[in-house]
Amino acid sequence: MTELAELETPCAIVDLDCVERNLRTYQEYCDEHGIALRPHIKTHKIPDFALQQIAIGAQGITCQKIGEAEVMADAGIGDILITYNIIGDRKLARLRTLANRVDLLRVVADNEFVVRGLSAAFADSPKALEVLVECDTGAGRCGVQSPQDAAKLAGLIHDLPGIKFMGLMTYPPNGGTARVEEFFRAAMAECEKLGLECPVRSSGGTPDMWQAHLAPVTTEYRIGTYIYNDKSVIARGGCQEEDCALHVLSQVVSLPAPGRAIIDAGSKVLTSDLFGLEHFGYVVGHPDVTIKALSEEHGILTFDPATQPFEIGQRIRIIPNHVCVVSNMFDYVQLCRGDIFENPAFVAARGKVL
Amino acid sequence: MTELAELETPCAIVDLDCVERNLRTYQEYCDEHGIALRPHIKTHKIPDFALQQIAIGAQGITCQKIGEAEVMADAGIGDILITYNIIGDRKLARLRTLANRVDLLRVVADNEFVVRGLSAAFADSPKALEVLVECDTGAGRCGVQSPQDAAKLAGLIHDLPGIKFMGLMTYPPNGGTARVEEFFRAAMAECEKLGLECPVRSSGGTPDMWQAHLAPVTTEYRIGTYIYNDKSVIARGGCQEEDCALHVLSQVVSLPAPGRAIIDAGSKVLTSDLFGLEHFGYVVGHPDVTIKALSEEHGILTFDPATQPFEIGQRIRIIPNHVCVVSNMFDYVQLCRGDIFENPAFVAARGKVL
Repeated sequence: MTELAELETPCAIVDLDCVERNLRTYQEYCDEHGIALRPHIKTHKIPDFALQQIAIGAQGITCQKIGEAEVMADAGIGDILITYNIIGDRKLARLRTLANRVDLLRVVADNEFVVRGLSAAFADSPKALEVLVECDTGAGRCGVQSPQDAAKLAGLIHDLPGIKFMGLMTYPPNGGTARVEEFFRAAMAECEKLGLECPVRSSGGTPDMWQAHLAPVTTEYRIGTYIYNDKSVIARGGCQEEDCALHVLSQVVSLPAPGRAIIDAGSKVLTSDLFGLEHFGYVVGHPDVTIKALSEEHGILTFDPATQPFEIGQRIRIIPNHVCVVSNMFDYVQLCRGDIFENPAFVAARGKVL
Repeated sequence: MTELAELETPCAIVDLDCVERNLRTYQEYCDEHGIALRPHIKTHKIPDFALQQIAIGAQGITCQKIGEAEVMADAGIGDILITYNIIGDRKLARLRTLANRVDLLRVVADNEFVVRGLSAAFADSPKALEVLVECDTGAGRCGVQSPQDAAKLAGLIHDLPGIKFMGLMTYPPNGGTARVEEFFRAAMAECEKLGLECPVRSSGGTPDMWQAHLAPVTTEYRIGTYIYNDKSVIARGGCQEEDCALHVLSQVVSLPAPGRAIIDAGSKVLTSDLFGLEHFGYVVGHPDVTIKALSEEHGILTFDPATQPFEIGQRIRIIPNHVCVVSNMFDYVQLCRGDIFENPAFVAARGKVL
């Protein structure tokens, strides 16, 4: 057992009681509305948390990259959706290997090039690879642009060997729930014209997590941030400060001038992600303090120069703007229940961009 | 030997011939002006490059955190400056251990709390720890605010056991060369009143690297980015595109709509660091293409919708805005000379924030 005072800063602290509350609360919401929950592991990147999500009721997990899925398969997770266009001989060979190791592997595609690559890689596979068509419902990232295009790609997937069309997937824009319902319904109708069913309709995103049931077409919901929450979720009304399970513990290293404090957490910890917010995180207990700027190893806090909320050596807790990218900056996170620290957890899927 | 086509994307590619040119060119500049070069390893975080910098003529290296210095000491580097206020029993114990392993260890301090901590940790050390006073010459980060305060802290360092005052250090603002000269000269005069010499006057920063000699008070210059260079250095006139040794290799994974391409390099590779620039890097050979937005694993490129510069599966090279933070996102970088790839280099000091 370690005490807070013994931790070196900067580090990431994760409260396990808060994690469990967050996981149970959203699982209950999904259960109530008959939506399958498929958490995105990008927020925690830790196999034990993925196993806990499944133990609490999640159907499987979501990964963005094969490298993440490989780490999770190593930990015994058997139901994985990779929400990424997978391209290239090496990645396709890894995907094929991975498919043999898990019970269910599903991927997405939004174009013919990707679909043909998947088919070629799985043409002689004993088990067809399940593929969802990714739809752009307004986020402006990947995805087919229309229900007609979704059905066209679904038809190609259906026709090609080694792969099996299973439905639709989207990462909607904030406030895009109604658009998901509209797009998916229209795409299903177009698919039906081709005799194709869409058993899986996968939506996701933390910003609209409490509106998921307002798109009843949705059969499964992918969500990452809910395990830890962050300043962006607070700002969007999705949680309260006490629901934020991950804090960055940092230390004041300099008070060089009135109204300015320097801390040992910079962009190598908090990252430069503004994530639509102003400034670089929230200092717990100090609503009047601004994390004004970051360099790699320094955070610059500003406050009313007539006040002095800090002393040198003081430890502060920060709720980051965007917790998923902060997870990716640490090899280990410090696990605790209140003030009691357990062994740290290895962030096994950190940096897995391949 | 590996060929470019065999590399999985996204990855970081470092051209060794370009690295060597960059290192030699700036070493020659420092030699010409009688300035000791003390490269900051934060840009590359790779011991072999630090050893190469020393072999070419650098006096020693600069690190920001003890964890980085430990990695470099492991590789046999014996002259290390840590430009950070070091606080806390655990860090001070590590610092003491490190001091015993290298020929020269030097640190900075900008306040009495830090100075007293260093003194207590080294009071019974056989060799005094060398300390520079960090001065704020306008960057608004750490540092004493006036030459008088610099001398006052120098006097304290001089008076306390276990530590030795060795001079001044600053990380100046862009365009701050004249301010460095003025501040350091005034601080030296104040120190002289106390009978204290300042043999080391350490300045640094890539943006004004070619003006270092215009602050002749400077005895040593700390610089990181020059080994790789990046879009920010190009933008500030410090180098040309062909001097950028690190490229991010990425792949087009989707062309969902006219004027938009999606690549597999997102903020987990390029980071969200704008670093004073617009957009998130430069696509080599495509000056009309904008890296408009990043999510964790996706980069969104935009361009004239009447054109189609890309096809799905195509590989592109990106010069990042700020290369130091990109280095920190990779466990390995791919080393090459032109199109011939050698074994990748382990980024041994990645993530060493403690």
